[in-house]
Amino acid sequence: MTAARASAAHIEQARAARASYRAGSAAPTSGVAHGLVQANLIAVPADWAFETLLFAQRNPKPCPVLEVLEAGATESRLAPGSDIRTDIPAYRIWRDGQLVEETTDASAAWEEHPDLVSFLIGCSFTFEAGLVDAGIPIRHRELGRNVPMYRTSTACAPAGRLHGELVVSMRPIPASLVADAVAISGRFPAVHGAPVHVGDPASLGIADLAHPDFGDAPELRDGEVPVFWACGVTPQAAIMASRPPFAVTHAPGHMFVTDVPDAVYAT
Amino acid sequence: MTAARASAAHIEQARAARASYRAGSAAPTSGVAHGLVQANLIAVPADWAFETLLFAQRNPKPCPVLEVLEAGATESRLAPGSDIRTDIPAYRIWRDGQLVEETTDASAAWEEHPDLVSFLIGCSFTFEAGLVDAGIPIRHRELGRNVPMYRTSTACAPAGRLHGELVVSMRPIPASLVADAVAISGRFPAVHGAPVHVGDPASLGIADLAHPDFGDAPELRDGEVPVFWACGVTPQAAIMASRPPFAVTHAPGHMFVTDVPDAVYAT
Repeated sequence: MTAARASAAHIEQARAARASYRAGSAAPTSGVAHGLVQANLIAVPADWAFETLLFAQRNPKPCPVLEVLEAGATESRLAPGSDIRTDIPAYRIWRDGQLVEETTDASAAWEEHPDLVSFLIGCSFTFEAGLVDAGIPIRHRELGRNVPMYRTSTACAPAGRLHGELVVSMRPIPASLVADAVAISGRFPAVHGAPVHVGDPASLGIADLAHPDFGDAPELRDGEVPVFWACGVTPQAAIMASRPPFAVTHAPGHMFVTDVPDAVYAT
Repeated sequence: MTAARASAAHIEQARAARASYRAGSAAPTSGVAHGLVQANLIAVPADWAFETLLFAQRNPKPCPVLEVLEAGATESRLAPGSDIRTDIPAYRIWRDGQLVEETTDASAAWEEHPDLVSFLIGCSFTFEAGLVDAGIPIRHRELGRNVPMYRTSTACAPAGRLHGELVVSMRPIPASLVADAVAISGRFPAVHGAPVHVGDPASLGIADLAHPDFGDAPELRDGEVPVFWACGVTPQAAIMASRPPFAVTHAPGHMFVTDVPDAVYAT
C-alpha cells in the first residue's frame, strides 16, 4: 500500500512537471519525480525510422528503446495524456546534422514533418534513484547541476546511413562504493545498465574531464573515481556524424518524464 | 581450456551441419551443435523492415532479435562464411500471407527480391542445452521428434501493418523440476527467457495438446506439467494474419545454427 501511495504521489509530480514544461518552463530533469522512468527523445522522418531502430538494436547500451511512437503519433503510452511535441523541457532541432535551434516547444517540427517517428530511449537518471536509495552520492544533483556528458572515441555499430561515436555520462563515485554502483545500475539494462567504463578517461578518448561536451562541469573529490555510463545522447552524436536531413531530440539532461516506475525496468 | 576445446569442436559441428543443409539435407535442428545458439529466420522486403523490427521490439519474448542482415545481405555475423539463403535445413516461402512453397534452398527468393531484410530471432533450442545439463528431460529430443508448437489466443502488440497471435513451444516437465526449468530458461532472455505460461493449455486458447499447429505431437506422462515458452514461429503467425506480399522464413523446428555459444546470451 505504501509503495502504491508513493507511486501515485510521484505520478502526480510527473504530470505536474510535464504540464510546467508544456507551459514553457525549462530545467534539467535529474531528480524530478523520483523513482519514475525518464527518457531521451530522437524523432526522425519515416524514411530514417528503420535505420534508427536498427542503430538502437545494435547499440543497446547507449540506445535502449523504451517505446516507439509510429509516424505522426504524439502521445506516449508511458505517460497517458502526454504530448511528445511539448512535454519535454527543452528540444533541439537538427538540419543536415547541424543544431539549428533549441526550443521549449517542438510543435512546428511536427507541422513541417508530420511523418516524424519518435523513439524514447532509456535514461540513466532512472537508476540514480536506486543509487541514492543505496546511499551513493550523486554529485550533480547535490550541486543542482546537469550531469556531465562526453563524446568518446569509441565507435557505435553502424546501421545503414547512421553511424557515430558513443556518448557517456559521468558520475564521480567514492572508490569504496564503485562495486555497489555497478551492481545497482546493472539491474537496469533497459536504462543503460552497468557502466561501460570505470576510471581512466583517456582510454575513452576524453581529454579533459573538466570540459564535458554536454551538461555541466563535474566536481571530482579525493578518493572518487570517474564512472562512465552509456548515454542516450549518443543518437545526437550519430545525427552530427550522419547528417540526416531533419531530426528532433531533447536537449541533453532535459528528459521526457514518464509515469512508469523504475522498478518496471529492473531485472 | 576444456570449455574452449569443447566450443571449437561444437563450432566444427555447426559448420558441418550448415554445409549439409546447404547441400540439401533437411532435418529439425534440436540438439544439433549442443551449446551453440540457434535462430529463427524471417526475411521481408525492405519496405516491411521497419514494421518487422518494431513488431519484434514490442514483442521481445517471442521475437528477441539476435541480428539483422540489411537489405540484400546474406552472410550472418553469427556464423562467418554462412549464407542465409541456403544454410537453413528448410525454408517456407510466403505470398500474401499464404504458405506457397517449402524448400531447402531459398536462393530464388533473393533473386526475385534482392532487397530482402533478414531478421534472426532467438530460439528456445538454445536454452535446451542448459535444461539437459541440469538433468531436465527434453521429451521431443528423447523421441527424435520436432518440438510441438501451438498458436494461442493471446494477441501480440501490433506494429503498423503487422499483427498476429503469440505462438508457443511446449515441453512436458516433471512437476518437481518446473521451478528449475523456469530459473534456467529465465537466464536467457535473448532466446525467449522464462516460460510465458505453466499448465492449463485452455487459458492460452489451446484446445488439444495432442494436435500442435507446428512440429510433432507431444507425449505427456504422469506427473508432468505442460510448460509453454514464447516461440520464434510467432512472426509466421503474423505473416498469416497480416499478409505482406512476400516473406521467407525457416520451417518450424528447422533453425539457423550459429557459431555463437549459448553462454554469450546468458545473463
